[in-house]
Amino acid sequence: MSEITANKTALVVSAHSADFVWRAGGAIALHGQQGYQVHIVCLSFGERGESAKLWRKGEMTEQKVKAARREEACAAAEILGASIEFFDMGDYPLRADKEHLCRLADVFRRVQPHFVLTHSQKDPYNYDHPLACNLTQEARIIAQAEGYRPGEPIVAAPPVYLFEPHQPEQCEWRPDVLLDITSVWDKKYQAIQCMAGQEHLWEYYTRVAQQRGVQAKRNVGIASGKNIVYGEGYQSIFPRVTEDLA
Amino acid sequence: MSEITANKTALVVSAHSADFVWRAGGAIALHGQQGYQVHIVCLSFGERGESAKLWRKGEMTEQKVKAARREEACAAAEILGASIEFFDMGDYPLRADKEHLCRLADVFRRVQPHFVLTHSQKDPYNYDHPLACNLTQEARIIAQAEGYRPGEPIVAAPPVYLFEPHQPEQCEWRPDVLLDITSVWDKKYQAIQCMAGQEHLWEYYTRVAQQRGVQAKRNVGIASGKNIVYGEGYQSIFPRVTEDLA
Amino acid sequence: MSEITANKTALVVSAHSADFVWRAGGAIALHGQQGYQVHIVCLSFGERGESAKLWRKGEMTEQKVKAARREEACAAAEILGASIEFFDMGDYPLRADKEHLCRLADVFRRVQPHFVLTHSQKDPYNYDHPLACNLTQEARIIAQAEGYRPGEPIVAAPPVYLFEPHQPEQCEWRPDVLLDITSVWDKKYQAIQCMAGQEHLWEYYTRVAQQRGVQAKRNVGIASGKNIVYGEGYQSIFPRVTEDLA
Amino acid sequence: MSEITANKTALVVSAHSADFVWRAGGAIALHGQQGYQVHIVCLSFGERGESAKLWRKGEMTEQKVKAARREEACAAAEILGASIEFFDMGDYPLRADKEHLCRLADVFRRVQPHFVLTHSQKDPYNYDHPLACNLTQEARIIAQAEGYRPGEPIVAAPPVYLFEPHQPEQCEWRPDVLLDITSVWDKKYQAIQCMAGQEHLWEYYTRVAQQRGVQAKRNVGIASGKNIVYGEGYQSIFPRVTEDLA
Amino acid sequence: MSEITANKTALVVSAHSADFVWRAGGAIALHGQQGYQVHIVCLSFGERGESAKLWRKGEMTEQKVKAARREEACAAAEILGASIEFFDMGDYPLRADKEHLCRLADVFRRVQPHFVLTHSQKDPYNYDHPLACNLTQEARIIAQAEGYRPGEPIVAAPPVYLFEPHQPEQCEWRPDVLLDITSVWDKKYQAIQCMAGQEHLWEYYTRVAQQRGVQAKRNVGIASGKNIVYGEGYQSIFPRVTEDLA
Amino acid sequence: MSEITANKTALVVSAHSADFVWRAGGAIALHGQQGYQVHIVCLSFGERGESAKLWRKGEMTEQKVKAARREEACAAAEILGASIEFFDMGDYPLRADKEHLCRLADVFRRVQPHFVLTHSQKDPYNYDHPLACNLTQEARIIAQAEGYRPGEPIVAAPPVYLFEPHQPEQCEWRPDVLLDITSVWDKKYQAIQCMAGQEHLWEYYTRVAQQRGVQAKRNVGIASGKNIVYGEGYQSIFPRVTEDLA
Repeated sequence: MSEITANKTALVVSAHSADFVWRAGGAIALHGQQGYQVHIVCLSFGERGESAKLWRKGEMTEQKVKAARREEACAAAEILGASIEFFDMGDYPLRADKEHLCRLADVFRRVQPHFVLTHSQKDPYNYDHPLACNLTQEARIIAQAEGYRPGEPIVAAPPVYLFEPHQPEQCEWRPDVLLDITSVWDKKYQAIQCMAGQEHLWEYYTRVAQQRGVQAKRNVGIASGKNIVYGEGYQSIFPRVTEDLA
Repeated sequence: MSEITANKTALVVSAHSADFVWRAGGAIALHGQQGYQVHIVCLSFGERGESAKLWRKGEMTEQKVKAARREEACAAAEILGASIEFFDMGDYPLRADKEHLCRLADVFRRVQPHFVLTHSQKDPYNYDHPLACNLTQEARIIAQAEGYRPGEPIVAAPPVYLFEPHQPEQCEWRPDVLLDITSVWDKKYQAIQCMAGQEHLWEYYTRVAQQRGVQAKRNVGIASGKNIVYGEGYQSIFPRVTEDLA
Repeated sequence: MSEITANKTALVVSAHSADFVWRAGGAIALHGQQGYQVHIVCLSFGERGESAKLWRKGEMTEQKVKAARREEACAAAEILGASIEFFDMGDYPLRADKEHLCRLADVFRRVQPHFVLTHSQKDPYNYDHPLACNLTQEARIIAQAEGYRPGEPIVAAPPVYLFEPHQPEQCEWRPDVLLDITSVWDKKYQAIQCMAGQEHLWEYYTRVAQQRGVQAKRNVGIASGKNIVYGEGYQSIFPRVTEDLA
Repeated sequence: MSEITANKTALVVSAHSADFVWRAGGAIALHGQQGYQVHIVCLSFGERGESAKLWRKGEMTEQKVKAARREEACAAAEILGASIEFFDMGDYPLRADKEHLCRLADVFRRVQPHFVLTHSQKDPYNYDHPLACNLTQEARIIAQAEGYRPGEPIVAAPPVYLFEPHQPEQCEWRPDVLLDITSVWDKKYQAIQCMAGQEHLWEYYTRVAQQRGVQAKRNVGIASGKNIVYGEGYQSIFPRVTEDLA
Repeated sequence: MSEITANKTALVVSAHSADFVWRAGGAIALHGQQGYQVHIVCLSFGERGESAKLWRKGEMTEQKVKAARREEACAAAEILGASIEFFDMGDYPLRADKEHLCRLADVFRRVQPHFVLTHSQKDPYNYDHPLACNLTQEARIIAQAEGYRPGEPIVAAPPVYLFEPHQPEQCEWRPDVLLDITSVWDKKYQAIQCMAGQEHLWEYYTRVAQQRGVQAKRNVGIASGKNIVYGEGYQSIFPRVTEDLA
Repeated sequence: MSEITANKTALVVSAHSADFVWRAGGAIALHGQQGYQVHIVCLSFGERGESAKLWRKGEMTEQKVKAARREEACAAAEILGASIEFFDMGDYPLRADKEHLCRLADVFRRVQPHFVLTHSQKDPYNYDHPLACNLTQEARIIAQAEGYRPGEPIVAAPPVYLFEPHQPEQCEWRPDVLLDITSVWDKKYQAIQCMAGQEHLWEYYTRVAQQRGVQAKRNVGIASGKNIVYGEGYQSIFPRVTEDLA
């Protein structure tokens, strides 16, 4: 699993420019380490809704906030070993039209991802997250259609995983995959520390990783002699196709 | 995946003596082929509830029906490459007491399964099926307890998969795993043909396998160049622990 | 629909001896009027849990309470045009063993019902109700089995409807059938008045009937020119088989 | 039920121009045979998302694809005995504005349907389908409002049935109605054969019909002596109002 | 609890101009009586969808209907002791763009509500209701964001309660709060009587209040010696934070 | 809220002798501090399933394990300020008959609790927990019945709260109450430290308390100026009856 698989790719769609760090930083670093090229799309910078600390500094403008958030996100992506781009669609509220949808479908076509990570389908604390989830799912479907930009290579049926929201039970999110991120925890925590504007979340998401680590250890089957300490939870959208049930 | 893994084992718990054939015959044959030792426990022979054709023959007794059903089940298990045992707990209604529970926990201890297959958690057409499911899950938990027959080696946390009921939507059963059984379909169909008393189901479950095959093909990711024709659906109880999301 | 259909039958299973009146009195009277022979089984008299007024009279014994409740139930059944029998299994808690199950399966065999009415599957206010529901469903399945009392005529697949619990939303009960009981409301209210020990419920269940009546009127299709005033709600367990969707 | 009822009507809303065939062809033919005038609205031709085979022919344009799809759909509608119109709203993604909504509400006013058929409420494989479902439901509500085009006759409360999606369990679709389409299967299969561009689905939907047929047979009540071979499943949105529970 | 708490405020968002009366009139009057300043926003007048009686008068225009509805709503609000404003967004269909969203977020900022009341999240009979619910929830989130109109005081995390829809079970609405409105029932019924155009609902919603009253009485704990006669049910969106579980 | 309310009581039902500490220790200490008399019933000692460390010591018997567990539980209860009793029903599997049910109903009668705490309704990792939940709920219902031990004072309708299971999402447990336990955290952690046999859980449940604390802070309304650091989550069974929605 840890050998170089140069052609493998993954796509992460993040509503705001820090979500991918808290929620999927381990998956990004882990698959990067396994040779995947992971690409991140940030739909917005979270400039309105997730930059409270920056706004409180005074003398702030939306442009300055966005610039600061971009810098943080780029630094985090680099640590995690991923490429990143920004759609700058605005947040609170995030809104998507057909052009945004096609732009994301085009990213699917370009990246040809082997799996996709995005937000949960419900979140009463954050309406931008479900919108990002739906945009991602619909873009994936469009990128699969022969009649969309006919002649281009279509995408296959990459699995979609929903990463953990802030208050999982309230979002009707239920993990059916626990990813062992022990080997890349250092990188994830380094990336988390790039998020200077949200320092109150550093320890919160460290504890999330520890809890999912304990749970992963408890759910693991016989074969594993591994000591899992840190984990990330994911919820699948589609059935997994396999030949091995162990 | 198809290499010999001599120590791998699996456990299948079937409420009646034919359930394992229709619902999990592909998984049994496939893992047998991969070197797993698969063991089947039939809680009852289905002598009352699933032997209509035999009863209509006339001159029938419960003992005769059971004997006929045992023979069919043994023949099917042999074709699928699995060992089999019978608890003879009676059906319609199936009822379990503490002794049955311990007996099954002891099978868990003996087999040390890498994964477990059993029935769905609800079935308004068949109350024996959910009972088998709950008995299996509770036996697995007891076999994990240090204080049950202290000193014996406990079992790890093998994943539990629920196989497909006759009318899936009415049972609130939703497959999150699609198993490609194309390579062993011949064996499964041969095992199905052992069930002389339920010939009306042969074609029904052939079509089930074909539909799950088409669905598996549609859900498969990039890597696969395989031509999936036959499938089996399963619903997981526990989250899967992994290091690879593709 | 209102013509005489002499061979049609229905079975109502009531946990306590008054449930059938509040919850299904309209259906019983309506189908009685249509020529159905409706048979009621009361699993208990509700002597402990639903006879508060009687107990407060003083000088009371369980036997006296049961006798009073039996009398009320018989009077109500007569008004509704149904036959009635009592299993006297005890209440609070109601408990069923294999014998009770077979006894009820035998009633299914004898009555050969065209439809079945019983309690909801959940009720956090009353654990006897779900038990009655499950007992009824399992008895129906057993009565369908060729191997149960071989030689006897088995029952077909009568639809099962769950009648309205006291606090529907808390019981996860959702009506998918609204029965127009306007033409038999007088009978139902007369039967309700037999329940001298629970007078506080008379107006409550009158209002339930009025609300379901208004809702039925709102949900009715084009064809109906009828003025629906009173209704009863039911939740189906099984899909309806039909040739007409209007 | 099979007598001529000249004034009865039904409305089918299909996201793409072939959906109505696979999913509701039996219902259309059956009610046509019973004297209903069934009208089909195709919101799009499925020109992008469901015409892969046509696009692979080469020298293809969206206009050519649409024309080919229109021809197929018209031929199928004719075989099924229904009228058809095309909204040509585009697919992948299908999008609806207030004008489309009013246009469909006006169809409701014109057709005055006794029942309505459309797509499931969720479908992670196809975002156009839930959109069609919601558009249909909202149009129905608007057509019921006295203040929409005041003076026009409003529509009553026709039941809405959701037809079967491609992977039912993944769409949280659960059939509560099984329609016996045995008597019109030949017509449905003939209509299916009009869909030259999706030949891979012919046998898939034949097997769907066979499975629903077996299930209908198993769920049918006493009265029926019929031999059901082919079926279609539907999920109701609203409670059914009735006076007969058998 | 009934002391004057001059700074306490609440916000009610009503899709149509009468919804707040039927569904939340008790809560409004009760909290008004407790010293809360309750503010109502009516997104539309319900001029198309909920004014059938007015339209049937003849010689009617949309403007006249709106004027009549506004008058009724103002009268009701006055009786209930609340302030009211009208967004006049149109109904059947209600549609909201970014401007409406910001307008409502600005109301949140101005009112700084201690709690919020609005519609259920689903309603197959009325698509305007869920839209109002979502608009309210998203406006609340935006009003919490530091970056929305930076410098303005943001809102805290007021609990959101969903009031009772017309057919609760069909809307997947489940009350987890029962409000005792016995002391203000007179006011609520007086407000109800302002709705001259919907007289058929007066008794319906009186019975709703009586049923919820009986249920509240049954669910109340030890401490209460109160005689609850009328109630209103609410469903919470967010967990309640407390230091007392009794 | 923190004044002495000498007559207030609460009941906690714990499947194994440590559950009440991890899951409800904060609630117990907090209400104790508020003057409640909190009584704990441990159905078993968790001697088989939750005493792995003790069994590994060697020279162990079930009696020794039970004695050690009893000692730990008594020490913890004392720290939390609660009384405790042990039913010694056995674990893995826990099983309850009518006598156990009556015994617990009698505790309800004796304690007359203002609220009740117990386990979640589902737990695929632990079948003893749902059994404890159901036993508690049914005992509460029986204790409410006039006809159970007629003449004794019945219990009112105390709210029932389900405490947090080990893997909440897998248990379909969703907190609707977040209890601020910051002021008693020291006591809870002291009680946790009594559980010498399960030291691996100390930090796990510390983090659970911290996460629920952060969430409580985020969900709290305007009025609170408090700094919440530690919390416990609960799920309600019944609707809350109130006169204040803030």
